[in-house]
Amino acid sequence: MTHYQQILKISTTGKSLHKVTSQIQGIVAQSGIQTGLCNLFLRHTSASLIIQENADPDVLQDLENFLSKLVPEWENYIHSTEGADDMPAHIRTVLTHTSEQIPIAQGRLVLGIWQGIYVWEHRQHRHTRELFVHVMGEK
Amino acid sequence: MTHYQQILKISTTGKSLHKVTSQIQGIVAQSGIQTGLCNLFLRHTSASLIIQENADPDVLQDLENFLSKLVPEWENYIHSTEGADDMPAHIRTVLTHTSEQIPIAQGRLVLGIWQGIYVWEHRQHRHTRELFVHVMGEK
Amino acid sequence: MTHYQQILKISTTGKSLHKVTSQIQGIVAQSGIQTGLCNLFLRHTSASLIIQENADPDVLQDLENFLSKLVPEWENYIHSTEGADDMPAHIRTVLTHTSEQIPIAQGRLVLGIWQGIYVWEHRQHRHTRELFVHVMGEK
Repeated sequence: MTHYQQILKISTTGKSLHKVTSQIQGIVAQSGIQTGLCNLFLRHTSASLIIQENADPDVLQDLENFLSKLVPEWENYIHSTEGADDMPAHIRTVLTHTSEQIPIAQGRLVLGIWQGIYVWEHRQHRHTRELFVHVMGEK
Repeated sequence: MTHYQQILKISTTGKSLHKVTSQIQGIVAQSGIQTGLCNLFLRHTSASLIIQENADPDVLQDLENFLSKLVPEWENYIHSTEGADDMPAHIRTVLTHTSEQIPIAQGRLVLGIWQGIYVWEHRQHRHTRELFVHVMGEK
Repeated sequence: MTHYQQILKISTTGKSLHKVTSQIQGIVAQSGIQTGLCNLFLRHTSASLIIQENADPDVLQDLENFLSKLVPEWENYIHSTEGADDMPAHIRTVLTHTSEQIPIAQGRLVLGIWQGIYVWEHRQHRHTRELFVHVMGEK
């Protein structure tokens, strides 16, 4: 059993979806693991993970539009000292994902053909986000 | 450490929840693993996984009704060329789950008494969905 | 490879968020595992898991307010025999999380500085909830 851990840093600028699929696949390749599991854990409470369509960028814009409307900034939140976008960012994180795990077979993530892995920044300001990647399995 | 991988194919016909609990339990039994983890990964971006009440089918209908109302098809989505149900299907997937993991003890999933595992088809048309099941642990 | 399993019982009284971070960290410490993965699985369909801000309790109140409004009790649900709060509790569970996994490095969960682990009770009445904790890895 081999464990391989690496932190991937993602620089974000405003609300946006950042595709990290190839970087994660690169870490899996570095690990040398052929059969096992790749665990992704985002170390934040105002950004999140999703696995979604990797082809048409309009899908990403529609996702952002939907969440912006579902979780409006002008709502009367109690927690408001960190800016109008902060509490919505926490809610958007809760409604999406902090951890995901993807099996590995023959040295590759078993993603479907249309699946990409994204870090979703929910804050307006520039951030550096840490995605903890833990690969475990057999070489 | 043993790894056991199998793809479960689920045929769907329209928006619907498909219970796969006993099939997953069967794969765990085939693996022979007594203590470990069962990872479920759905290889799609317009269908999802949930773990929910396995007793009253009305719960499933209420879940479908809720999501249909929360993510309406008549919204003005940018990504619309694949049909009115496609972008809502992506959003419904993001709001639910692509991966789940369930511990295994004494050769069985440690599900609660009311918990069932479901694949949720979010598209109108017939599909074959692939659920990647990865079981790892000790025999 | 070591596996360590323990069930954490949480007594709840009404809709509320229960922080379990230090208890989970205690179980990881007991396991003696230095490098690996901590899997959390909640054995219920009307309570859920989230990883969220551990500092300002106002965030928790805003999260509760948001979900209460998004999933109203006065909606006309088909499944209504177990009380007005039951079907909303199932929906709230589906929109949040039943399983989470957190990597372990140097014997500790790799949580971000603001991240806490919470069990979210979605029912009004008193319950005892079971959180299955599965730690796996190398000592």
